Amino acid sequence: MNDVVTLHHGSGGSRMHALIDRIFISHFSNPVLNEKKDAALLENTGSDVAFTTDTYVIDPIFFPGGDIGKLAVCGTLNDLAVSFARPVALSVAFVLEEGFPLSDLDRIARSMAAEAKDAGVPIVTGDTKVVPRGKCDRVFINTAGIGVVEKQVLERIRRTKPMPGDRILLSGTLGDHAVAIILAREAFRFHAQVSSDCANLYPVISKLTASSEKIRLMRDITRGGLSSILHEITDGTNLGIDISEENIPVRNEVRAVCELLGFDPLDLANEGKFIAIAGEEDADRLLKILRESPGGENAALIGRITRSHPGKVMMTTLTGGVRMVEMVSGEQLPRIC
Amino acid sequence: MNDVVTLHHGSGGSRMHALIDRIFISHFSNPVLNEKKDAALLENTGSDVAFTTDTYVIDPIFFPGGDIGKLAVCGTLNDLAVSFARPVALSVAFVLEEGFPLSDLDRIARSMAAEAKDAGVPIVTGDTKVVPRGKCDRVFINTAGIGVVEKQVLERIRRTKPMPGDRILLSGTLGDHAVAIILAREAFRFHAQVSSDCANLYPVISKLTASSEKIRLMRDITRGGLSSILHEITDGTNLGIDISEENIPVRNEVRAVCELLGFDPLDLANEGKFIAIAGEEDADRLLKILRESPGGENAALIGRITRSHPGKVMMTTLTGGVRMVEMVSGEQLPRIC
Repeated sequence: MNDVVTLHHGSGGSRMHALIDRIFISHFSNPVLNEKKDAALLENTGSDVAFTTDTYVIDPIFFPGGDIGKLAVCGTLNDLAVSFARPVALSVAFVLEEGFPLSDLDRIARSMAAEAKDAGVPIVTGDTKVVPRGKCDRVFINTAGIGVVEKQVLERIRRTKPMPGDRILLSGTLGDHAVAIILAREAFRFHAQVSSDCANLYPVISKLTASSEKIRLMRDITRGGLSSILHEITDGTNLGIDISEENIPVRNEVRAVCELLGFDPLDLANEGKFIAIAGEEDADRLLKILRESPGGENAALIGRITRSHPGKVMMTTLTGGVRMVEMVSGEQLPRIC
Repeated sequence: MNDVVTLHHGSGGSRMHALIDRIFISHFSNPVLNEKKDAALLENTGSDVAFTTDTYVIDPIFFPGGDIGKLAVCGTLNDLAVSFARPVALSVAFVLEEGFPLSDLDRIARSMAAEAKDAGVPIVTGDTKVVPRGKCDRVFINTAGIGVVEKQVLERIRRTKPMPGDRILLSGTLGDHAVAIILAREAFRFHAQVSSDCANLYPVISKLTASSEKIRLMRDITRGGLSSILHEITDGTNLGIDISEENIPVRNEVRAVCELLGFDPLDLANEGKFIAIAGEEDADRLLKILRESPGGENAALIGRITRSHPGKVMMTTLTGGVRMVEMVSGEQLPRIC
C-alpha cells in the first residue's frame, strides 16, 4: 500500500467510494455503518435517533447564496431530513488558521446561528481548535447532527425499497451550487448570475413525508452529483434507472458554464436539492407539493426504476439517443463543499 | 473587530473561553449550549441523550502511547463518560491532505477500529474530505459521539452541585500526554521515556458512578490542564478550591521536562485523566476503586471545595506556602490534541 491520498478521493464519486470501502468500512465494519446512509439510524438509544456528520472545507468561504457556516448547518440538517428524521440538535467544531480574522469568524457564526434558529434546531455543543499559519486554509467546520425518527416511519422505511415502476422526483435545477462556487473563484472570469442553492430541505421534505407513505428513499444531491446518487441506489442491486434528459431542470447560465468548461450538470454538486423515489400512485401529488413549496418551482419527475438493466443508469438524451450515465470517477472541483 | 485568531485562542485556557463567549455563545446561545458541558444533554429526543464533538489536529500524528486515531476515539468517549453517559455511537470525519500516505490512513483507521471495538461502541457514520497539498497538515479527524444517560442519573446530576467540604479526586499523574508529544517532536532532543496516557475512561468511570451517588461532577483534563478545569468549576460561583501540591501525582520524567522548559504540570494536557468531585463520605471508597483499576494506581485525593475564597483556586506548595493557581491564558503547546 504505497498509494497516497489524491484529490480524486474527495470527489464523491467512485474513487471516494473505493477508498471508503478499502479503509474505513473494512476496519470499522458494523451493520449500521455498512448501510452507508446519509445518517446512521440508531436503535439502541431508547428512542430512534439518526446521527450524521460532515466537515466543510469549501473555498471560497463566502459566496453568492451562502457561506461555509450556512452550508455546514444546512448540509447536516439535509442529511437528517433525507433520512426521514426530524433534526433536533447540532454540534459544531471549528479548525481555525492562526491569523484568521475574527470579523470573518463572527460573520460565519452569525450565519450559522440564523440558519439554526430558522430551522428551530439548537447548536448544543462545540469545539475550537487553532493551528499555526499555513497548517490549514482559514477555516474548516464540522457539523454533526442528531434527529429523531418516528417509530412508525422507521418501521415503514425498514421494510421499504425502490421497486420497478417507481418514479424519481428531482426537487429542482442541478448544478447551481457548483457553478456559483466556480464563478466565485477568482480563476474564472465569466459574468453570470448564479447563486448557490444552499438551503435547509427539512421543511419541504417534512411536507412530502407527511403526505405519502410511498416514498421509498430520499437522498440529497451533493458532491458527486445526481449521477453518483443514482449509482449508489442501483449498484449491487437487480434494479436499474431510466432518466430523461429533457425532464432534468438546468438553468441556462449553468448549462452555459458547463459547456464552456466541459462539465456535465449531472455530475455537479448541489447543496439544496434532493431526489425522492416514490410509488407511481403518489408521484404526481408529491410533485405538486414540491412545486408549490419555496424554491421547488422547477421540481420534475425525471425517470423511473426499472428491472430491464440491473445496476445501470440509462438516460434518453435531448437528441433522442440513449446513453449510459457513469458515476463520477475523479475530482472535478476540489473543495466544493 | 480587527482582531485575528491567534494560537492563544486554541489553548484551552482563558483566551479560548473569551473567544467562545464572544463569538460562539453570543450567536448560538441556548440553554443547553450555554452550560458549556463536555457533552450536551438532550432531553427532546425521546430518551436522554448526551452529544459531544471534538476535532483532533495533533502533531505528530503517531506518538508513544497512541496516535491521532486512538486519541479521537478515546477523547470523545471520555467527554461522554464524564457526562455520566454510556457511549453508544461515534461518527468520524476526516480531512485529508492530498499526498497523505494511504498506509498511514490505514494504520489510523485500524487504531480507531481497535479502540472502538474495545469500548464496544460502533463508528456508525462518517465523512471524508480531501484538500489540495498545503491546505491542511496531513490529517485532521473529527469525532462526535452519542451517549445515553439513565433517567435516574440525569435527575440526580441535575439536582447536584459541588458543595463546601467535597473532596477532589484526581485519577492519576498529570502531564504524561503533553510531555510525550513534546518529546516526540523533533525539535526537542531529550531522552526520556514518557508515553501518552491516552485511554478510554468509561470503564473506570462506570465503576465509580455505579458505586456512589455522591459524585457531583466529573471532568476530563485535556487542553488547559488541571488549572483550567478547576477554574471552570469555580469561576462565577461562590465556591473556591484548595489543593495540595504534595498530593498531585507527577512522574519524575514529566517534572524534569517541566523544569527544563518552564512548564507547570498543572497546565499540561492529558488524554486519559479526569477529576471527580465527590461528597466526603464516599471519597475514600472512590479512591480505592480508582487505585484498583488499570492505570489508576497513582490516583489521589488532591483537595477540597471551600467557601473561604470564592472563585479562586489556592494551592499549598511543596515548600509549605500557598499560591493562587491561575487559568492558562495563552497557548503553550499548539496542536497538543
